[in-house]
Order: sequence, then C-alpha cells, then structure tokens
Amino acid sequence: MLRNLSALIALFLVSLTTYAQISDSVALRSIYSETLENSKAYNWLRDLTTTCPGRLAGSDAAAKAVEWAKKTMIEAGADSVYLQEVMVPHWVRGAKETGTIIEANGKKQSVPVIALGNSVGTPKEGITANIIEVHNFDELKALGTEKVKGKIVFYNHPFDEKFINTFEAYGEAVEYRWAGPSEAARYGAVGTIVRSMTNAQDDFPHTGAMHYYDSLPKLPCIAISTNGANLLSSIIRANKETKFYMQTNCQMLDSVKSYNVIGEIFGKSKRDEVIVVGGHLDSWDNCSGAHDDGAGVVQSIEILRTMKALKMTPERTIRVIAFMNEENGAKGGKTYAANLNGEKHVAAIESDAGAFLPVGFGLNMKEEKRELIRKWIPLFRPYGLWNFDNDGDGTDISFMEKYDIPCIGLNVNSQRYFDYHHAASDTIDKVNKRELLLGSASMAALAYLIAMHGL
Amino acid sequence: MLRNLSALIALFLVSLTTYAQISDSVALRSIYSETLENSKAYNWLRDLTTTCPGRLAGSDAAAKAVEWAKKTMIEAGADSVYLQEVMVPHWVRGAKETGTIIEANGKKQSVPVIALGNSVGTPKEGITANIIEVHNFDELKALGTEKVKGKIVFYNHPFDEKFINTFEAYGEAVEYRWAGPSEAARYGAVGTIVRSMTNAQDDFPHTGAMHYYDSLPKLPCIAISTNGANLLSSIIRANKETKFYMQTNCQMLDSVKSYNVIGEIFGKSKRDEVIVVGGHLDSWDNCSGAHDDGAGVVQSIEILRTMKALKMTPERTIRVIAFMNEENGAKGGKTYAANLNGEKHVAAIESDAGAFLPVGFGLNMKEEKRELIRKWIPLFRPYGLWNFDNDGDGTDISFMEKYDIPCIGLNVNSQRYFDYHHAASDTIDKVNKRELLLGSASMAALAYLIAMHGL
Repeated sequence: MLRNLSALIALFLVSLTTYAQISDSVALRSIYSETLENSKAYNWLRDLTTTCPGRLAGSDAAAKAVEWAKKTMIEAGADSVYLQEVMVPHWVRGAKETGTIIEANGKKQSVPVIALGNSVGTPKEGITANIIEVHNFDELKALGTEKVKGKIVFYNHPFDEKFINTFEAYGEAVEYRWAGPSEAARYGAVGTIVRSMTNAQDDFPHTGAMHYYDSLPKLPCIAISTNGANLLSSIIRANKETKFYMQTNCQMLDSVKSYNVIGEIFGKSKRDEVIVVGGHLDSWDNCSGAHDDGAGVVQSIEILRTMKALKMTPERTIRVIAFMNEENGAKGGKTYAANLNGEKHVAAIESDAGAFLPVGFGLNMKEEKRELIRKWIPLFRPYGLWNFDNDGDGTDISFMEKYDIPCIGLNVNSQRYFDYHHAASDTIDKVNKRELLLGSASMAALAYLIAMHGL
Repeated sequence: MLRNLSALIALFLVSLTTYAQISDSVALRSIYSETLENSKAYNWLRDLTTTCPGRLAGSDAAAKAVEWAKKTMIEAGADSVYLQEVMVPHWVRGAKETGTIIEANGKKQSVPVIALGNSVGTPKEGITANIIEVHNFDELKALGTEKVKGKIVFYNHPFDEKFINTFEAYGEAVEYRWAGPSEAARYGAVGTIVRSMTNAQDDFPHTGAMHYYDSLPKLPCIAISTNGANLLSSIIRANKETKFYMQTNCQMLDSVKSYNVIGEIFGKSKRDEVIVVGGHLDSWDNCSGAHDDGAGVVQSIEILRTMKALKMTPERTIRVIAFMNEENGAKGGKTYAANLNGEKHVAAIESDAGAFLPVGFGLNMKEEKRELIRKWIPLFRPYGLWNFDNDGDGTDISFMEKYDIPCIGLNVNSQRYFDYHHAASDTIDKVNKRELLLGSASMAALAYLIAMHGL
C-alpha cells in the first residue's frame, strides 16, 4: 500500500514537473513570439541614438537620455518608474584632437586619433616629441628611463586574432589603454599613443577609459586608428628619428548629479524579491552608442513591454535599470549596489556586449545556483542559446557580486563587437533588428523563469 | 594473466583513443589559428566580388569567375586544379525593369521591382492591368477565374517573424515566387508581383528563381521591395481600382557551356576516397554575390591554403568544388552527381547560407553516420559550434543524396542572410571577416576529421 502510494506520489510529482516544463516552454515561446512580432526596441534604439548621441555621464545628452528612459519605461507599461540619484564624474573632451606624424625629413601626416577617457589634455600648443614603439610592458621596462625619457610611448599591441571570443583579445590588450599612460610616466615619457582596441582594420580611433596611478605624473594619452597605427609603425621602423605631434583639449571637471533610471513590474506573490535586468544608458561622447549600450537599455525596457502585452504576472518583481556612467566610473552600478537596503535580490542580468546574436548566458554565482539555471538549457536550445559555460556578467551589476547575488551576462556572438566599440561607427545601421530582439527575449525568458521559480 | 593482458590492451586502447582525441584537438586548434591569422579568403572575396559581380550562369562575368577560381585554387596550393564541363541555362535580364502604381485618380508612383529569374519578359510596351492582392494560394483559389482573369496578381506574403531560423520563414514564403506565376496563370492572370523574400524593410527588390508549369501560359513576373509592397497594399486597400504597369525585358536564351572549378589535396593513403567541400561560383546578375555565395567559394578554397600552410596530409582526398549555376538550374551540382564514375565519396560539405557566424552543421545522412559525426561535437564546442540537430545541406551537393553520400551543410547564424539575399545589397561590406574565416575553419576541421577517420 505504502509502495503504491509512493508510486502515486512519484507519478504526481512527475506530472507536476512535466506540467511545469510544458508551461515554461509555452511561456518562453509566447515571449519570443511577442517580442519578434511586436517589439518597439528597435525604434526606441533609433530614437535614443538620434536624439541623445554622445551621452557620456555628466553631459547634456546624458541628462536628456535620463528623461528619455523614464518616458520610455512609462510607455512600456511599467508598474512604477523612478530615478536613483548618482554622483558621476564629468569628463569633457573639448575641441577635437590632433595627431600628426612628423617624419625625419620633415614630412607631416595627420592620422585619426582620439583622447582617452578621463585623461588630461596636452598644453594648448600640444606636445612634439620623438616616439618609441613598444608591443608590451616588458619591452617598455627593458628600454627603461634612458630610452623612454622625454619621448611619446606608442603601445602597438594588436588584438590576437587566434582567440575565438574577441573579449579575450580585448582583455589581453586593454591594459595598455588602461594603465599605459602611468606605466610610461614611470620612465619619464611625455605622452602615450595606444593602438585602438579593435579587430577592424580601418580609420576609426576607439576611445575608452584609462586611469592614472596617484604616485606618477599624469600624461596626455590618445588612441590611434589601426590603419594609423600600422602607418606609424612602418614609418618608425624606417627611421627612428620620427616625431609625433599630439594636441588634446580634454579635462576632468567636478562631479555632477545624474541618475539610474528604474522601471518595475511588481511581483504577484513575492513583490519584495527582485530580479534586476539592465544595461547602461551612458555612452562615449564620440558615438551614438547603439551597440554600447543603447541596445542593452532598449532590450531591457522591451521586457517590460513584452510582459505587459502578454499580461504576465511574475511571482517576483522584475526591476529594469538603465545604469548611468558605466563607461568612465561605473558610479551607477556602485551606487545601486551600495543601497540595496536589505532587499532580497534573487539575481541580476545585464546586456552589455552589443545587440548581436545571443548564444547563452554567463553565470557568475555559486556552482549550485549555476546548476539550477543549467537545468533550463533545454528550454533555451530552440532559441539558439547553448553556452552557459562562462561567468562573464556585466560591469554595472558586478558590484552586487560581493553580496553573493547571482550575476548573469547575456552572452552574444562576439565577432563584430569591437569593430564598433567606443568608435564613431557604433551606429544603428550596425544593429540587426532580429538579433536585438532575440537578445531581449532571451533576457525576458530567463528573468521570467527566475521570477517564477526563484534561484 | 589473460586478465592482465586484457587490462593492458584496454589501457592501450584508451591511450590510443585519448591520443587520437588530443591529436584531433591539436589539429583543429592549428586549423583555426592558421585561418584566423593568415587567411586570404577575405581578400579573395573582395577580389571576386569586385572583378566578377553579377556572375549569373552563362554570363561573361561567370566565365571570368571560372578563370578567377582556377587561378585562385592554384594560388592556394592545390595538388591539382581542373574544370568540369557543364551546360547551363542562359537567362538574361535585358534593360532594367519598371513597375508603376497607377492610382484610380491617375496618380503614378514608381516602385522598386526586379524580374524573377528564368521568367519571360513583358511585351515591349509593358502590361497595364488591375491588380488583385492575395496572401496565399488559398485566397487565390477562392477568388477563382472570375475575379482573377485579366489582372495582375500581387502575392503579399510577408516573412513570419516568429520563426527563429529565418530559413523556415523563407521556406514557407518562397513558393509564391517559385510557383506563383503558373498558379496565377491557372486563373487567367496576365502577370504577377511577389513581395520580396526578406526580413528587411527597405527599398531593395530581391530576385530569385521561378519556374513555369508546362501546361499553363508563361506570365511575366517581378519581385517588389518590402517598402514597395507595403505601399502597394495600402493603396489597393484604399481603392480596388488601382492599376499597375510592369515592363520587363528578360528572356531565356539557348544553353551554353560553362564549368565547375575543382581543386584537390590528394589523400595520402586513400587517394581514391573523396570528401567534397564547396560553394557556388555563380550569383544573381543584380548583385556582387558576397554572401551568396562568393563566401562559400572562398571559404572552400581557403581550406586548400590552410592545409597546405600547415603541411597537413589528410589520409583521404579533399576536393574543393566551385559549382556553377546553383541559382537558376543547379546544372553544376547535377552534372557532378551524374558523373561520380564509381569513385568513393565519403561525404560532401557545402557552405551556401552566407558568411555568418557558424553554429554547427546540418547532417543529411543515415542516423548511424550522424551519430559518428556527433561524437566530434566536443571538439567543435570551443569554436562555438553546437547545433548538429538539423539535416539541411546545400543545393549543389544535394544531388548526391540519392547515392547515400552523407551531405553536410555549414549551419550559420541565419538572422541577417535574407536581408541581402538576391538583392543589390549583397556586398562585401556586409561580410565580417572573422565570421567568414570561422566558417572556413569549421569546414576545414570537419573535412579533416572525415579525411582522417572516415565516416
């Protein structure tokens, strides 16, 4: 009898599980269909990138983008929309930069350059100096003060094309942008040039954040396009007496007030438990920020619209956040994480790798939670998501990691991202509408599963 | 003792297997690295698409492309390069087509149109007729001869955006292009217009092959851009008396001689066993054929270069084929399959879905062979290939299916393909170099595994 009862209970549990799986599968299909057929995300992205291009934290464009995000979350049907105050650095580029190769014979050639974010400007008259090319910090160290002093250091470290995931090539190269100016200052350099962080061979210089060590002089620093870097390198190889003229006009001003923009769908039974989904609203000042990261913002807001259109009422609260200042300070993410106020955060999901084909999720969390999410892989396979192997999440949400909040990154095809990253070419014509929407639907699907089943 | 011997043999076999796996894994890594670092495929594709655009079978551009492919296979280092004669249809477009909406009030609007491949032209003075919009063949049938006779039928069947793989949307819609003219002729129509086969909303009309039923009159037929289709539909809905003027100048001429271009790496121990890898050299006449299918051709030729650069000597012969006439007759594929001459073909692989991110392979073969290939999935996962679920291969190789030759298609991200398919927008700037190379390396890797281990 007991045996039969056990069998009956087992059967009942199996039915329940099967029902839950079928029901989840149906929910995911409805999410993808609603998003693919009726999404507003692509039009929103066009609107954001054309009305608020160059929305670096502290800029007028960023302030306008805050209003835009608030209005758009309301339009998407959020149950509640509000702002969270964030103090952000205010770096300004000033007038356009100049970079000129001066050959030993006096011939001058202008090359495409751009000042690095957070950097100091040159004196108004610019800097002219001999130039020394290195491929890494070891070479710089080997040259030492004797060879480096008084010169402009040119970090010519190309992306390693052998990496399948381009983020690995970026990870390896970006230290020359981030720390290159201070490392060069250590040996008495007067300025630095860094090869743009990109797989593309073209004329776009790519900016991005750098930082100064407190103990060393602050050198002006610029990025040069890959074509420009190749040209410069070939000229230096031909004649070591090559000089370079650089002139930049950037400066760091006092911090200013800005905002994270937040929109929610209230949880039905567990409103006090939160799943964060977001991207960052700011972009570099030299581009419209379509892939980086207007995409993440409109994909996240679209989750609100899709769920409302489907009349979905998740058990837990889904909180969409358009973070401010990811690019040069991450004050939005830091401020959010510093003010959790004991609220239970079940998970956080971010899209900040471009609006490309989604292939999976990066899972930064304890192994047992990772295993729970991996049980859902069969639900995602019909939509092309298979890679749940890595742990990359997103800068804005990463400040929640220390509270053991599971942090998740939308993992997308990485092949094209750095072609446009932090360059003027990051425009909406590089975004494929369906890839953008598949990313949004994938995040909506995962947020839904976590909101229904917990984690 | 026997037990110990068995254990020893087992250990030895395990070691062999492990060694084979490690050795395969090392080979694949070297293939991907060599291709990503040193490939010529992207430059070849630029060269092919700029020197031989519009290389429809029978055209001068196609003849030039044959010479180009031969020269390039030699440059790639093939052990042998030769041509296979193929008689191909010779369809010509003639002067550019015209399509004009004539509203009931007399207002005229030109819209972007293009004649469908293989179709007859209109009389020189064109055709002017009332227009009737249908969304499918059921609607056409329901209208019947009474409503259709003397009119131009407008098939306005949009891609179903809910499909995750866009080839499924294409598969569902393309029958209106392929069979629409004859189906309309059945009810006495005088011409047909078909909505372009694309997810894109833009002004490019997309051509493609159609065919006539022998028993019915041959109607002139054109494709209209999606923007044009939406405009036309809205005008018809507003006034049923809308007319349309269409004028085309195309015709089918006598068949002409052309060629498949073939380059081989001889197998070391089993030279008489062949693995075919290919794409098609011809393209539509209205485009440069970058994704369709210059990509497949240069990816395949790159396999020759990569293997030669790595000094790889596969056990079986790898035969690269640039097939002729896939677009409007597939005579290249048919001719090749009709002349196997008893040669053992172990497998055939084709790339004809664009140079987009590879995600797996379609396996059209007996289940037991499929299982053999699926054992290699762990070798491909580091390179992002995971989907070995479907059975799509490629038109050119599909004629070998009936001889039970395993036919394999490179399975790529499908989201962008139909944006450019058979339209003037299919140009090299839509091709990402790394995605092109990853596709080539993936085919090289699979060809290598089959050449070494058989199937």
